[in-house]
Amino acid sequence: MPTTHNSASVGIVQPQTAVFDQPLTLACGRVLTTYELVYETYGTLNAQRSNAVLVCHALSGHHHAAGYHSAEEKKPGWWDECIGPGKPIDTNRFFVVSLNNLGGCHGSTGPSSVNPATGKPWGPGFPPVRTRDWVESQARLADYLGIACWAAVIGGSLGGMQAMRWSIEYPQRIKHCVVIAAALKLSAQNLAFNEVARQAILSDPEFLEGDYQTRNTVPARGLALARMIGHITYLSDDAMASKFGRDLRSGSLGRGSEENVEFQVQSYLRYQGSQFSEKFDANTYILMTRALDYFDLALEYGNDPVAAFRNATCDFMVISFSTDWRFSPQRSREIVEALIAADRQVSYAEIDADEGHDAFLMPIPRYLDVFRAYMRRVGEEA
Amino acid sequence: MPTTHNSASVGIVQPQTAVFDQPLTLACGRVLTTYELVYETYGTLNAQRSNAVLVCHALSGHHHAAGYHSAEEKKPGWWDECIGPGKPIDTNRFFVVSLNNLGGCHGSTGPSSVNPATGKPWGPGFPPVRTRDWVESQARLADYLGIACWAAVIGGSLGGMQAMRWSIEYPQRIKHCVVIAAALKLSAQNLAFNEVARQAILSDPEFLEGDYQTRNTVPARGLALARMIGHITYLSDDAMASKFGRDLRSGSLGRGSEENVEFQVQSYLRYQGSQFSEKFDANTYILMTRALDYFDLALEYGNDPVAAFRNATCDFMVISFSTDWRFSPQRSREIVEALIAADRQVSYAEIDADEGHDAFLMPIPRYLDVFRAYMRRVGEEA
Repeated sequence: MPTTHNSASVGIVQPQTAVFDQPLTLACGRVLTTYELVYETYGTLNAQRSNAVLVCHALSGHHHAAGYHSAEEKKPGWWDECIGPGKPIDTNRFFVVSLNNLGGCHGSTGPSSVNPATGKPWGPGFPPVRTRDWVESQARLADYLGIACWAAVIGGSLGGMQAMRWSIEYPQRIKHCVVIAAALKLSAQNLAFNEVARQAILSDPEFLEGDYQTRNTVPARGLALARMIGHITYLSDDAMASKFGRDLRSGSLGRGSEENVEFQVQSYLRYQGSQFSEKFDANTYILMTRALDYFDLALEYGNDPVAAFRNATCDFMVISFSTDWRFSPQRSREIVEALIAADRQVSYAEIDADEGHDAFLMPIPRYLDVFRAYMRRVGEEA
Repeated sequence: MPTTHNSASVGIVQPQTAVFDQPLTLACGRVLTTYELVYETYGTLNAQRSNAVLVCHALSGHHHAAGYHSAEEKKPGWWDECIGPGKPIDTNRFFVVSLNNLGGCHGSTGPSSVNPATGKPWGPGFPPVRTRDWVESQARLADYLGIACWAAVIGGSLGGMQAMRWSIEYPQRIKHCVVIAAALKLSAQNLAFNEVARQAILSDPEFLEGDYQTRNTVPARGLALARMIGHITYLSDDAMASKFGRDLRSGSLGRGSEENVEFQVQSYLRYQGSQFSEKFDANTYILMTRALDYFDLALEYGNDPVAAFRNATCDFMVISFSTDWRFSPQRSREIVEALIAADRQVSYAEIDADEGHDAFLMPIPRYLDVFRAYMRRVGEEA
């Protein structure tokens, strides 16, 4: 935690673990007999239990969304810009719940957990998990916490997909749905990037068909490559240009130089990849990208998102960012148009921002203002 | 060659080899004492030797640009849509020269050639080659063929960069410069994609720091990954959507299916990657992407492309494609604006096309019409 204590921080937070013994039948048909979910909470649940907000994480996210785990921790949780006293998700007003999803690698039951049937890590044998399974397990977490209805379910990217699934699976348990930088389903290009990322992992000889954990190897190179590929799609061309341009880290582009030139952007990407590969699990990465690939909100509604959203009763806020090319504003407009056609209440903000898909994590004033204004309304109703 | 003989084909063609014994000093300062260039020619050189056209290839290209090597060959050369009788580069009118660049892996001297000093393949010890070195070696090929001045130097993508370099390095030896889907230099995002592609190769354990050839391994997985990454950037989001959408190759997205789903786009990409890795050399891929990274037309002109183009005397044709996001129309407009400011003659066409960067290889009617019209003028002057 920075020594200059920021009053807008939730401060030191403590992860908690909820253990579930009631079997969970997944979309694939397989059953998890027991499982654990790691979560954090910020703010205080009110007497009516009406001010709870669920924050759903994206591809590589986890439960640690805000604050610090210790006074020594330098970086706060991943969405600290948006969660805290006076922030858009105002912890003076809301009781915020953030969890690590099933299949994750930050404490919730996933591929690196021990399979009770074998006494060994699940590894590649962990069942495939879909967005609807996450929603189901989040509903059980709500039961566990005594939350009958969320004031809002909120998420960016893959988190926004969970929020949309909530709105049609549990219409009575969600009052507001905030969908940021998301899409009704992945495009062919999105699928293609995920495939290359997975192939990078699968073709790492240390992946050992996913059995690396029991055989004491780590497919670090494959995971780093996967992250590098993903990272390019999170940033806009403009953001990369203004952050790095063609600046050199070493070497010279002049004549007479035989040394290999290294550009700043290249060294940055390699660093990001290598950092990520030290703290993320390869099987979880594969599981999460597959869940993203398979998400298709309207599939079982005859591919008609209007029909899908007719099941929803909550109000919606949809936000997109101008330079996001992973889930472009056009993809958000598809959500908005379907909601309007389904006669649902929806607010939509398209934010001018250079940061690409990553903008949803950034302190962009207009974004924070719009988000805060909407959440104020949510809070007044709660 | 298809049995229904296409009269617009140059028919059966034969690669030839030019051997150079005059040492070539490369931009890096190292010297190639001897080297070979493999090339093909289509059409007939006229008596005045004034109708010769040089075609420069892109990242993974080679000398075989048109026609067939045998009656059994099913696919023609890579630019057969644009080279042939009555085609934009009309072989009834022009003598077309297409070569494999230095550092290539299709017969010209490159990393897989034998280093005369050691008797072993050059491998990773082959000197880094820049676009200006290619232009220099192409000028020597012109000498060898008795061509004092090209009617036109033409290229798409990295080929367009060679054409631009020709215009300012040898202004007296080029009458027209046709630059298709190119840029004055790579953006940070372009550099980033190239870096991930190279890292995929470098991190393949069979790459052996480039010494795979002498040690009888092939970094096929790394090269396939590199190609998959590149391939995504060659296609537009729209092209992928209309070609594949979310069509499945196997599995089901419905509930109850535990089998892994495979999307068509994913299987297509894997196929492209694996095909490429069987016929391309990894060291050449690294060399070519580095040449692309390092290309910066205006670097030695105080980063002023106007100053660079003031050295040119030829006329220019610049073509871009609306959905090309690798080298977008904006990048072509930068070329055009610099040419105008340098008081050079330039025609510019921005072609509406769904095919992304790959459009420059495709039979898109408006593209072919514009290209043909410009080349007719080139031919009339020749």
